[in-house]
Amino acid sequence: MSQGEVKAAVLLIGDELLSGRTQDVNLQAIAKFLAPLGVEVAEARVVPDVPDEIVAAVNALRTKYDYVFTTGGIGPTHDDKTADAMAAAFGVSIDVRDDARAILEAHYKGVQHLNEARLRMARIPTGATLIANPVSKAPGFQIGNVFVLAGVPSIMRGMLQDVAHRIEGGAVVRSVTVRGRGVKEGDIAAGLAELEAAAPGVSFGSYPWFTLEGFGLHLVARTADAAALAKAETDLTTLIASCGATPEIVVDMA
Amino acid sequence: MSQGEVKAAVLLIGDELLSGRTQDVNLQAIAKFLAPLGVEVAEARVVPDVPDEIVAAVNALRTKYDYVFTTGGIGPTHDDKTADAMAAAFGVSIDVRDDARAILEAHYKGVQHLNEARLRMARIPTGATLIANPVSKAPGFQIGNVFVLAGVPSIMRGMLQDVAHRIEGGAVVRSVTVRGRGVKEGDIAAGLAELEAAAPGVSFGSYPWFTLEGFGLHLVARTADAAALAKAETDLTTLIASCGATPEIVVDMA
Repeated sequence: MSQGEVKAAVLLIGDELLSGRTQDVNLQAIAKFLAPLGVEVAEARVVPDVPDEIVAAVNALRTKYDYVFTTGGIGPTHDDKTADAMAAAFGVSIDVRDDARAILEAHYKGVQHLNEARLRMARIPTGATLIANPVSKAPGFQIGNVFVLAGVPSIMRGMLQDVAHRIEGGAVVRSVTVRGRGVKEGDIAAGLAELEAAAPGVSFGSYPWFTLEGFGLHLVARTADAAALAKAETDLTTLIASCGATPEIVVDMA
Repeated sequence: MSQGEVKAAVLLIGDELLSGRTQDVNLQAIAKFLAPLGVEVAEARVVPDVPDEIVAAVNALRTKYDYVFTTGGIGPTHDDKTADAMAAAFGVSIDVRDDARAILEAHYKGVQHLNEARLRMARIPTGATLIANPVSKAPGFQIGNVFVLAGVPSIMRGMLQDVAHRIEGGAVVRSVTVRGRGVKEGDIAAGLAELEAAAPGVSFGSYPWFTLEGFGLHLVARTADAAALAKAETDLTTLIASCGATPEIVVDMA
């Protein structure tokens, strides 16, 4: 792993992610959102819409990492169990709260009925603060170091706008990617291991690619140290060139 | 969750999945592979290329579920730490094994050098059986109830062909999806909760969708009981129709 000192976990909640019905895209979106804030995603879990599983996972993660981001399970239907699970995890009560109710009332006024199901979306654990939802209004919330967000990707990303200012990040990890067409992992493995051993503050990775047009490698270096990153770029370029390939530099891909 | 009695966990291994560099697609592929075999994915985790994290995760999962599928970290480079972590998790030794070495020797013969780095891919924990790799030859392996697969999606999918015959599945869970254009979750939440309460063997889910052309819902029912599934299809169709929408049935989507 890289050298970021502030670490987060992502907890994706929903049967549909485990059944194969839905392809998750929220983990990558959250990782890309956090990286420039100096927060590294160190672990992720996917759990079903089962309260005990949600509670166990969030309690394991919130004590281990600086921040936890959950997605999913805060809508109006019976399979939306995240808010109650968060209250249980933190040992606090939960009820419809006036500020959240007011947001829903303003949104649904004159358009459709704010029925009991929709009011479920105003159930907020005691002590939580609301996270604005610019897309569909029903708010997320922050409780302790846990940010509880929607599962629909467009809504989740909208909520992140009200999260950035709450994060105290660390050093920002940057990366460089050097691409080598026609290079095989087995040809650079020894050289890459030497680079890793000689640069303890830098994380190196090797990612093969295959397409109809050919194959090759992306070699990636990640570190918060700008000078070390510049040296790694030179070293990776030299390593790719030593295989007879033309190195291509792809900045900020990782 | 649905009613499948045989449960699996998926453990995705790799810094690149947590940094946001790579969008995982293996979880969904494994879930879709297992569903018709009567195995339900009940949990997934993503961990970095850190031996202690890999060991802790696989030990937590292999004791809780019938099967565990890992992806990633079995290539030739220094960041490929999965095989050694599996040996540590099971408390067994690991070394280059003759059968795995023979596969690599046949593959690399005359083409390129079977160097020390590539030989790392023949390191197999004691007691494991090999999993054939029809794509790039370097094998995966099964140790106990854990299947250790490659991270590159095309290679991972190839390896699954040598996994199906090793699985003892349970009842196959099938699903039905009923689509309702223009229907909102808040309008069907109460009715859906009634259906769930009246059919304890069926798992119901509600998934809103939004596009430039409009919005709507997919209501999903999942169960291994064919008669209960047929009733659920009728009930969901009626529920969508009660909102004034035309129900569309999408079989086998979930």
